[in-house]
Amino acid sequence: MNKALVCRLLGLVAMLIGGSMVFSLPWAWLAPGAEWGHERAGFFGLVGSILVCFAVAAGLRYLGRRNGGSLFRKEAMAVVGLSWVLATVLGGLPYVFSGTQWVEGRRMTLVDAMFEAQSGFSTTGATVLTDLEVPDGKPRPPLVARCILFWRSSTHFLGGLGIIVLFVAILGQGSAGKALMRAEMPGPSQATPQARVQHTAWVLFLIYAGLNAALTGLLWLEGVNLFDALCHAFGTMATGGFSTYNASVGHFATRPDLYDGPLIEMTIALFMLLAGTNFMLLYCLAILQPRKMLADIEWRVYLGVILVAAAMVTGFGLLTHDFGPQSGMVPPAASGETSDEEDDKLYVATATRYGLFQVVSIMTTTGFCTDDFDRWNSFGRGVLLLLMFVGGCAGSTGGGLKVIRHILFVKILHLEVEQAFHPTVVRPLRLAGKPVEDQELRRTILVYFGMILAIFIVGWLFTITAEPDSTWIDYGHGQAEHKLIDAASCVAATLNNIGPGLGVIGATKNYANFQWYTKLLFIWLMMIGRLEIYVILVLFIPGFWRTQ
Amino acid sequence: MNKALVCRLLGLVAMLIGGSMVFSLPWAWLAPGAEWGHERAGFFGLVGSILVCFAVAAGLRYLGRRNGGSLFRKEAMAVVGLSWVLATVLGGLPYVFSGTQWVEGRRMTLVDAMFEAQSGFSTTGATVLTDLEVPDGKPRPPLVARCILFWRSSTHFLGGLGIIVLFVAILGQGSAGKALMRAEMPGPSQATPQARVQHTAWVLFLIYAGLNAALTGLLWLEGVNLFDALCHAFGTMATGGFSTYNASVGHFATRPDLYDGPLIEMTIALFMLLAGTNFMLLYCLAILQPRKMLADIEWRVYLGVILVAAAMVTGFGLLTHDFGPQSGMVPPAASGETSDEEDDKLYVATATRYGLFQVVSIMTTTGFCTDDFDRWNSFGRGVLLLLMFVGGCAGSTGGGLKVIRHILFVKILHLEVEQAFHPTVVRPLRLAGKPVEDQELRRTILVYFGMILAIFIVGWLFTITAEPDSTWIDYGHGQAEHKLIDAASCVAATLNNIGPGLGVIGATKNYANFQWYTKLLFIWLMMIGRLEIYVILVLFIPGFWRTQ
Repeated sequence: MNKALVCRLLGLVAMLIGGSMVFSLPWAWLAPGAEWGHERAGFFGLVGSILVCFAVAAGLRYLGRRNGGSLFRKEAMAVVGLSWVLATVLGGLPYVFSGTQWVEGRRMTLVDAMFEAQSGFSTTGATVLTDLEVPDGKPRPPLVARCILFWRSSTHFLGGLGIIVLFVAILGQGSAGKALMRAEMPGPSQATPQARVQHTAWVLFLIYAGLNAALTGLLWLEGVNLFDALCHAFGTMATGGFSTYNASVGHFATRPDLYDGPLIEMTIALFMLLAGTNFMLLYCLAILQPRKMLADIEWRVYLGVILVAAAMVTGFGLLTHDFGPQSGMVPPAASGETSDEEDDKLYVATATRYGLFQVVSIMTTTGFCTDDFDRWNSFGRGVLLLLMFVGGCAGSTGGGLKVIRHILFVKILHLEVEQAFHPTVVRPLRLAGKPVEDQELRRTILVYFGMILAIFIVGWLFTITAEPDSTWIDYGHGQAEHKLIDAASCVAATLNNIGPGLGVIGATKNYANFQWYTKLLFIWLMMIGRLEIYVILVLFIPGFWRTQ
Repeated sequence: MNKALVCRLLGLVAMLIGGSMVFSLPWAWLAPGAEWGHERAGFFGLVGSILVCFAVAAGLRYLGRRNGGSLFRKEAMAVVGLSWVLATVLGGLPYVFSGTQWVEGRRMTLVDAMFEAQSGFSTTGATVLTDLEVPDGKPRPPLVARCILFWRSSTHFLGGLGIIVLFVAILGQGSAGKALMRAEMPGPSQATPQARVQHTAWVLFLIYAGLNAALTGLLWLEGVNLFDALCHAFGTMATGGFSTYNASVGHFATRPDLYDGPLIEMTIALFMLLAGTNFMLLYCLAILQPRKMLADIEWRVYLGVILVAAAMVTGFGLLTHDFGPQSGMVPPAASGETSDEEDDKLYVATATRYGLFQVVSIMTTTGFCTDDFDRWNSFGRGVLLLLMFVGGCAGSTGGGLKVIRHILFVKILHLEVEQAFHPTVVRPLRLAGKPVEDQELRRTILVYFGMILAIFIVGWLFTITAEPDSTWIDYGHGQAEHKLIDAASCVAATLNNIGPGLGVIGATKNYANFQWYTKLLFIWLMMIGRLEIYVILVLFIPGFWRTQ
């Protein structure tokens, strides 16, 4: 293990994080409603964190001063894994230094801060912050400074395509780049269309930044202020899910005097859909080759699953009248002026709006909410729970297992059943008509599903064992009976980088009330999910650190 | 496909089932409390079923009259798969013909009967019969005739080591035997200690029959009448779980005037433990080589998991006072004569008794109950749900995924993590120090877990979609909120051949209130679980039936 090189690269990570924090500082003045009196602690918290980041960067640079040596697979894995651990700690400092309160009178602990930072970098969007807003018409100041809120959303942007991809693109590590890209690029890698990795990284970065800018502009045109527009664009394009409002994206629909809620929701849904698409396909779209996109088997399945799931969730929801007044919607009967038929049409339209948005949000692993889906029927909730494991396309910012893995998984199982009665006939695995050349793929796909299953079960067992019933009794439904399914959704929502889940972490609730050790588990699960297992798991294998 | 041979063999199955029904007839007089008035319908129902079985056997024999041709893999799979389907229909006839009522005034439908028959043959022990007993002191006759009840337990005995193993042993299909054994013997096959399959089958049959006889004798010595002793022995040794009482094995503890409840429970627990052990190891034990048993890695893990799980379930249960008066236990405070210390000891002893019995019952996939574990804390219920997937040892009558598969699964995942940072070093899979020779094993284990996962998810999705909420609202807790976790436990309990699950199918409830199509799903899941997937799945592949 070339420790000097690892330290030097980690130093760069620390510097990048410190540097990124600088962009949050101006929002102490620029954000709408920002007052220096409420922003002061946040501002100086950020300044302090920046100084610590730079000090850590200098220290790591000093430790890695002995130049030379190359970056092999082991070093690349160590850099990626450790840089996420480092980012979790450094990215959480502003919350701690500013003394940010998650509810009035209770400051975030270091574990809370690490949870929030990892949730940002891993583009999960799970939060412990219970009260984000300036309460309308209330004299009380917001608990969270605007500049801290901007940093929170910035972690999504940084996490988005992976800190390391940004490294490759901006800092140009040359030959090291390829090894890093392998470890970082989400999804089973297909042949890169561009030969040079650095060029690819630049293209990806430009698409990513361009889409962020486009969504910000669109939201701004739709009446959202620049601060909210930027933060929601970061949350959308990274498939993160941090919002600047307690009601998430649903907030915009509650202020018909200011915004066209449904329009904003559909804009965000469209960009979530793009964020869950393979960025290479978006590149094809950008260079006016949309046919390649439509011909891609993964993208077609991705779109198909979303449409079918949305239709079924909406249909079942209509049958059981889920989208009723209790979910914050205007009930059809309340609008007395329209006819029954128009009522029905309106009801179906509104149901489709909520159903589609939530399915896109969960499937792309974003986790924005517009409706309290925890009040939906069991079918809808069950489908959302399953969609968490599907995730976006490979090469997107989405989490989960990725659509392509599911396609291959189903194909492999089908081949195996055939082989059960035709043991001598070995047919190759085919994708879009062509046999898959990578002989290892069959095994690696099965192993990946096995790993996720094992980690899911261990995480679930830990949560139901270690987390006391009081988390459910005091903060949930007043009883611990939902612990088993809620705990499963907690593990699913963090492991797949979604954010919200069922029950005690539902659309209107959050992770604040979990014990510190369960939060540490969730931090670990978010890392595991984002870096596709191995890079984090090997850190815990003693053999990995041994010099060979 | 050699259809004539398949028909001939299926004819033998029909004859065997019809022949086995004959043994249930005498219990219309012999069973304690049997009165001809109540037994008449059951008796003639059995007689009618026997005639139908023999007619079907004759018909199949006629269809398969053209002799010759050999039994290849495809034919063997078709025979095993189809014979389970045939057994489900034929075995259910007595319930239908006798007009057995599952609650007063409601007769079992054909689907109910098929469910009960498949539950018996697959040694699941899930039931739709809600009221089995002669109510104490009530004038009302029992709803279920004693001879029908004996047939119900007989299906466990027949299912036990698999109808086909009995075939091999008793009817001696010669060269066909080996192919059939492959398809039927549960668990990943290791080298057979005896060279000749037929000899092995005989030995297995003798051990199985011997243990059934031994348990019957022991229970009889402990005061249980011969009818109950035989039925419970069948349920225990087949890891089935049908009882002759509504309260399952818990019944014996409710009658301290007649039985020593704890003694009977521990006797049954011991034999459940044996039933979940590889029968080859029991053979070693029988020929006085107990060391081989203790040296077997699978058996040690099997025992270890049971002990650790029982200790944890009991420990957590003591902390949350689960084993309190609401579970039918004498609360420690109620016995005023003993000291506090003795109270505590008694409480711990009773908790251990309930905890251990339930863990053994679920892990071996028997499904007997002595306590309403649905009232236990979430941890205990969660552990039981996980244990359902562990199951017994390979080569036992237990269901589930089998312990050996879990051992190999964990080892494979561990090797894969190592390989992630040492891609050039390929280490062999080792079991008990020796490298596993079967190169296919790594893939087949992963595929098996993948298959179970896929079937579990499809089954769960079907249940939450198709089964209406009213099943929960009318027959469960009065609300449908537990549907997601209950449905998961239904699928787990049938797929792994357990029987009872959580909530709406808990220890004190049953499957009676599900819709007919969900019952058909459960029948299919029980077959899939018992025959280890492929033999049933291929029946649904058109290519399987095509003549090559």
